[in-house]
Amino acid sequence: MTNIFDILEQHFDEMVAIRRYLHENPELSHEEVETPKYIAAYHRALGHEVREGVGGRGVVATLRGGQPGKTVALRADFDALAIQEQNDVPYKSKVDGRMHACGHDGHTASLLVLAKALNKIQDEIQGNVVFIHQFGEEIAPGGAIAMIEDGCLDGVDVIFGQHLWAPVEHGKIAVCEGPLMAAADGFYITIKGKGGHGAKPQETKDSIYIGSQFVVNAQQLLGRRISPVKPAVISVCHFEALNPFNVIADSVKIKGTARVFDEETRELIERELEDVLKAACLVMKADYEYDYVRGYSAVINDRETTRFFIEQARQTPGVEEVVICEPEMGGEDFAYYLEKVPGTFYFTGARDPEKEEAYPHHHPKFDIDERALLVAANTLAKATLEYLKQHAVSSVI
Amino acid sequence: MTNIFDILEQHFDEMVAIRRYLHENPELSHEEVETPKYIAAYHRALGHEVREGVGGRGVVATLRGGQPGKTVALRADFDALAIQEQNDVPYKSKVDGRMHACGHDGHTASLLVLAKALNKIQDEIQGNVVFIHQFGEEIAPGGAIAMIEDGCLDGVDVIFGQHLWAPVEHGKIAVCEGPLMAAADGFYITIKGKGGHGAKPQETKDSIYIGSQFVVNAQQLLGRRISPVKPAVISVCHFEALNPFNVIADSVKIKGTARVFDEETRELIERELEDVLKAACLVMKADYEYDYVRGYSAVINDRETTRFFIEQARQTPGVEEVVICEPEMGGEDFAYYLEKVPGTFYFTGARDPEKEEAYPHHHPKFDIDERALLVAANTLAKATLEYLKQHAVSSVI
Amino acid sequence: MTNIFDILEQHFDEMVAIRRYLHENPELSHEEVETPKYIAAYHRALGHEVREGVGGRGVVATLRGGQPGKTVALRADFDALAIQEQNDVPYKSKVDGRMHACGHDGHTASLLVLAKALNKIQDEIQGNVVFIHQFGEEIAPGGAIAMIEDGCLDGVDVIFGQHLWAPVEHGKIAVCEGPLMAAADGFYITIKGKGGHGAKPQETKDSIYIGSQFVVNAQQLLGRRISPVKPAVISVCHFEALNPFNVIADSVKIKGTARVFDEETRELIERELEDVLKAACLVMKADYEYDYVRGYSAVINDRETTRFFIEQARQTPGVEEVVICEPEMGGEDFAYYLEKVPGTFYFTGARDPEKEEAYPHHHPKFDIDERALLVAANTLAKATLEYLKQHAVSSVI
Amino acid sequence: MTNIFDILEQHFDEMVAIRRYLHENPELSHEEVETPKYIAAYHRALGHEVREGVGGRGVVATLRGGQPGKTVALRADFDALAIQEQNDVPYKSKVDGRMHACGHDGHTASLLVLAKALNKIQDEIQGNVVFIHQFGEEIAPGGAIAMIEDGCLDGVDVIFGQHLWAPVEHGKIAVCEGPLMAAADGFYITIKGKGGHGAKPQETKDSIYIGSQFVVNAQQLLGRRISPVKPAVISVCHFEALNPFNVIADSVKIKGTARVFDEETRELIERELEDVLKAACLVMKADYEYDYVRGYSAVINDRETTRFFIEQARQTPGVEEVVICEPEMGGEDFAYYLEKVPGTFYFTGARDPEKEEAYPHHHPKFDIDERALLVAANTLAKATLEYLKQHAVSSVI
Repeated sequence: MTNIFDILEQHFDEMVAIRRYLHENPELSHEEVETPKYIAAYHRALGHEVREGVGGRGVVATLRGGQPGKTVALRADFDALAIQEQNDVPYKSKVDGRMHACGHDGHTASLLVLAKALNKIQDEIQGNVVFIHQFGEEIAPGGAIAMIEDGCLDGVDVIFGQHLWAPVEHGKIAVCEGPLMAAADGFYITIKGKGGHGAKPQETKDSIYIGSQFVVNAQQLLGRRISPVKPAVISVCHFEALNPFNVIADSVKIKGTARVFDEETRELIERELEDVLKAACLVMKADYEYDYVRGYSAVINDRETTRFFIEQARQTPGVEEVVICEPEMGGEDFAYYLEKVPGTFYFTGARDPEKEEAYPHHHPKFDIDERALLVAANTLAKATLEYLKQHAVSSVI
Repeated sequence: MTNIFDILEQHFDEMVAIRRYLHENPELSHEEVETPKYIAAYHRALGHEVREGVGGRGVVATLRGGQPGKTVALRADFDALAIQEQNDVPYKSKVDGRMHACGHDGHTASLLVLAKALNKIQDEIQGNVVFIHQFGEEIAPGGAIAMIEDGCLDGVDVIFGQHLWAPVEHGKIAVCEGPLMAAADGFYITIKGKGGHGAKPQETKDSIYIGSQFVVNAQQLLGRRISPVKPAVISVCHFEALNPFNVIADSVKIKGTARVFDEETRELIERELEDVLKAACLVMKADYEYDYVRGYSAVINDRETTRFFIEQARQTPGVEEVVICEPEMGGEDFAYYLEKVPGTFYFTGARDPEKEEAYPHHHPKFDIDERALLVAANTLAKATLEYLKQHAVSSVI
Repeated sequence: MTNIFDILEQHFDEMVAIRRYLHENPELSHEEVETPKYIAAYHRALGHEVREGVGGRGVVATLRGGQPGKTVALRADFDALAIQEQNDVPYKSKVDGRMHACGHDGHTASLLVLAKALNKIQDEIQGNVVFIHQFGEEIAPGGAIAMIEDGCLDGVDVIFGQHLWAPVEHGKIAVCEGPLMAAADGFYITIKGKGGHGAKPQETKDSIYIGSQFVVNAQQLLGRRISPVKPAVISVCHFEALNPFNVIADSVKIKGTARVFDEETRELIERELEDVLKAACLVMKADYEYDYVRGYSAVINDRETTRFFIEQARQTPGVEEVVICEPEMGGEDFAYYLEKVPGTFYFTGARDPEKEEAYPHHHPKFDIDERALLVAANTLAKATLEYLKQHAVSSVI
Repeated sequence: MTNIFDILEQHFDEMVAIRRYLHENPELSHEEVETPKYIAAYHRALGHEVREGVGGRGVVATLRGGQPGKTVALRADFDALAIQEQNDVPYKSKVDGRMHACGHDGHTASLLVLAKALNKIQDEIQGNVVFIHQFGEEIAPGGAIAMIEDGCLDGVDVIFGQHLWAPVEHGKIAVCEGPLMAAADGFYITIKGKGGHGAKPQETKDSIYIGSQFVVNAQQLLGRRISPVKPAVISVCHFEALNPFNVIADSVKIKGTARVFDEETRELIERELEDVLKAACLVMKADYEYDYVRGYSAVINDRETTRFFIEQARQTPGVEEVVICEPEMGGEDFAYYLEKVPGTFYFTGARDPEKEEAYPHHHPKFDIDERALLVAANTLAKATLEYLKQHAVSSVI
């Protein structure tokens, strides 16, 4: 096992090459065609069992170790975004209006080369490794649910996944036990009042006033109805009533987002936000439409697995520090794997430490420090092999 | 005097003809060219003293009665609106996108024919009549102020004016002592917060929240800071923050209107509305721009003159009822004449009583019951002649 | 008729004497015993028809004029207050904790002496005068309703009443057409939340938060639901939740007052204030008790009668000016007489003009300029006799 | 080391006896006299070094182990509350209005007997144990700060402390890494408006309205200004304006509490809560007084020590389960020890598992399942001895 890191390091150039190839050829979520073909071909060339079209467009490859044991799944997503790249780099996206602006190209490159490296020590591996190449992470409902329904976790004992992470500098791993990323929902509201002359409010049902009450009162759910130790956010981000200055608005459109880490709080917000709206409408006798759209569930890292992972990561080449981070309020459909099997999702620092700041994910100038690809592969390798070793059948004897 | 009504009735067809001619040839506020020429020519043909270009585009004509006495001013406005007429009538506007949708065509027709009728009894008139034909009533700062500065009220003892009024049915006059129409102001606000991710409100200055607080709190001025017997309105009619559902808005645009009947309340609203805004920004550390734009002052009918007018109107042919109405919250620059001389502004019912409802003023399908032209002329005639008679020099002897 | 003012002036000392006697012997509302006896005896001595116990404790006396005609009612109330007088005057209240601190002693004195004066010219009077001496004005439901039900207005054509008024200086009469004094109601609320530890709001239903929402949102009724030309007030004056700093309140008690001039607005406030409360409770799932208690209706002066009154008052000896005042937001059960017959209620200036300010009504140091008694009697006399004269049977012939 | 649990079990009766003796003889915070004497005498009888009057009324005893090594501090508080006990038990408080209603009697009993038990194996102990008997925990500023300033932590390497905890059932230990108990502050506000008649709000500065705005708007700090992963509470618990229903309140008194786990958030609340108040006063031109009083800091468990403790607790006799609890929002001055040395504070389940619910701490019927005393002693013993063993000088050789 010791030499897995050497093998990976020797293949670093390949990782970069694959990443750049994928970067140049981005495919939108749920429209991926060539990328999964490429991935499948790579695994087939290694002799792995390969299943294509899993859950739609996913690819699942399996490496069976030389010795009996547990099964570890490793997941990388491979979809890109509808963003016009503004980087001036040799490997710039060749497709107008499409870009790998979130690092999924790197996720895939790292996992493919890791597969090759593990393949080289197949005989020593005390169990199996399942490579889950997921499509459509960026756009709900995501690919995870469909791939799980299509059996990608069958027989899997534990799962690891990582995200190349621009806010964290190269050399660091950021992770925490329990909640790591929030459930990210949206709400879409239309307040249906009654317009009229600004000088005669008594003949109207003032929808701007109602909407404003909703905005102000929604915050009370956070401070009065939800435990202070349950992180939650309610943000109204869109308020639209484009009337002349002296004509009271007939209706108002409101959009916003809610973030939580637990299902109970999520249900409370979904339910009670409507009551806040209902209360604001009640006084004005107005009507409303309320649409609460659930995004991905929260990513909740299994505590035991994550402690194990942290221990391993601290001993992994290339990892200078494991930072216990605070939960992120953004969402990820890795959440659904963790609802089925224990596992850990973590952030691999991908910012060039020379730079003070990196462009954020989803920015037209987003890029990564490619050395992070190796750190990602190393940490996945270490966690996988150590897990299989500790749970090896022989070790019990 | 008795036969003035007969004369007017005999000229009813001319009134209608003039009104229809003007209706077909509308000119926008502050762009009137042909209309004032037409008016001036009409008066000149009667032998009246005529001054053109008064205050810019106004016309003032004077009829000197055969006997000495006071001077009564009668005012009619003659500008049209930037509205595309949707009526299918023979006298439909011939100018695309322009329309007499507020009845000023009728005001002018009525006053011109009244001038002709009074001219016929010139010898009997115990004083003078000044015909103020005003331009630019629809768009602040209006024509009244400029015409007054240009001397249109010089030597005037009392003034009467009327508005053909679609909400009131033909045959009725609506008027009240004291405040009749409100001062109509506008406010224009930009809240300059700081945008950011909907999941990280603590890194933003949420301008939608601030704006909503402003909307809710502005109402407290009415209920807590202004005397309940001082009518006032504050309406926010425009709220614009068109962000994606998960991105907190950088800034918000708000527009609204305030209506009052007295200067003290007006100043309070102008001043305190900014403090409401300042308070909402204070907690979020946001900035703002605040622009309060004054429209016309309130139309305050002189009590004594108005009692006199009501008495006369009750005895005027064609008037079935004088309704003591509640003040209207809309504005009129007749206000400025009343700040200089005593007088009365009133509404001449112009809705066909056969119809349950009329299209409101400024509507593309606005129209009037033309019989109202005669009632308007009759009431102005009655008030004028009776006023001159009661104040006649001879009557004192 | 001219000499009625002389007669009254000759009896000014008696007015003062009676006023001071009543002042020394105050009786609480609905507990009056000696005062009505005194009044009845006074009228009987004049030979008037007297009915005692009207509606409970009221006295109605009738003077039949020497000539046929209409019937004018004049009303004075005679109850005192549960206040300990702090004036150091020879005629100080002899009863501990009771005081004529609202001027009703003066109302009665003035009316009794006026009765004597009219009696002296009985032969000349062209109709009848009904003297309504009312009990229990200070405490709802007041004496007016009961006296009306007991027939005190039977046969009455018009009614006049006045209040000695400390805010207005002696020599002035203040009055207005239409609404003069508001309907004055009370509301009494208990919000029944659920208390708990201040650190665990999510386990409570925070009644202080709900109550605060109610206070803020109640104002929206004034600015959004009621016409700006309908005066109205909603004031929350009592908010009670006396918990330790770290224990969320189980319940909150709120009290307040609403004032309006018309029944439609009154009903709207009564109904919608509960919806404001319901809405605030809805979000927290709390319960409430809501009690809206109606005080007196609004005093609405008949327009025609009041114009007549103003004309007469201007010609009355002792009246230097008739001020057209703005409506007062305080209440009076004279309201109920005006719901039955046309009439006018007005304020007789009772502040010594030498003094900048007077102690307000219901103050332990309240007092009046006694010369106001004569002005009150004069104005009532003038209005009464002129009314009877103008409506005299003979004048029609 | 194994037999320390046997020794403790053998002395369980003594624990109970001491606890009951202390329970019968409660002494208020900062007034403790006999309790510290009793504690000092107990340790002296064991031959420990004893320092009395530490920081005022505290007692510090030191047991020096037979072998060199680190120094572990164990803390127990011993003050009681001003509560009248309502339990009907043989060991009921003998002092009227005073009661051990928070379990400090048990803390002390458990620690004293543990001292005796450790004393019996003194030779085997690889280091020292410092017994910190703290006074005045219940009332800020507490005894901890003074005892620390007086040297109670000198030479100490690690500290453990526990609280008998009624919400958790006997047999369970509840603890978490990082924040365990919140900083608990208070705020005290007077809003100084201007009272007046409920019918004339425009002449007042309505302090109830201002206070209500403050209550509603304070919640925005939690949802908009503080990171969702930083737990925080702001609760207004007292709102006092006891006016008649129709008199607007001159001033309002408000009290409340704020809870946080980190200093940055605490400072934000202290600072910004005043701005919320200032903003509410701004619109009404009112004044205010604002007093923010800091209570204890947050109890932040050292992560490494706490992981060690959890491991040990899981292996301790009598511990059926170690529950990783959510942070509590209540306060404890154990916070200050943890600011100086690493350590762990935890909750020892003290509810009789037969009972569904226990009376809460500070309740007149509060009581504990006395078997918890043994669990408390066992866990402290296990953590102490294992810590000293792992850090023993010899173990390094």
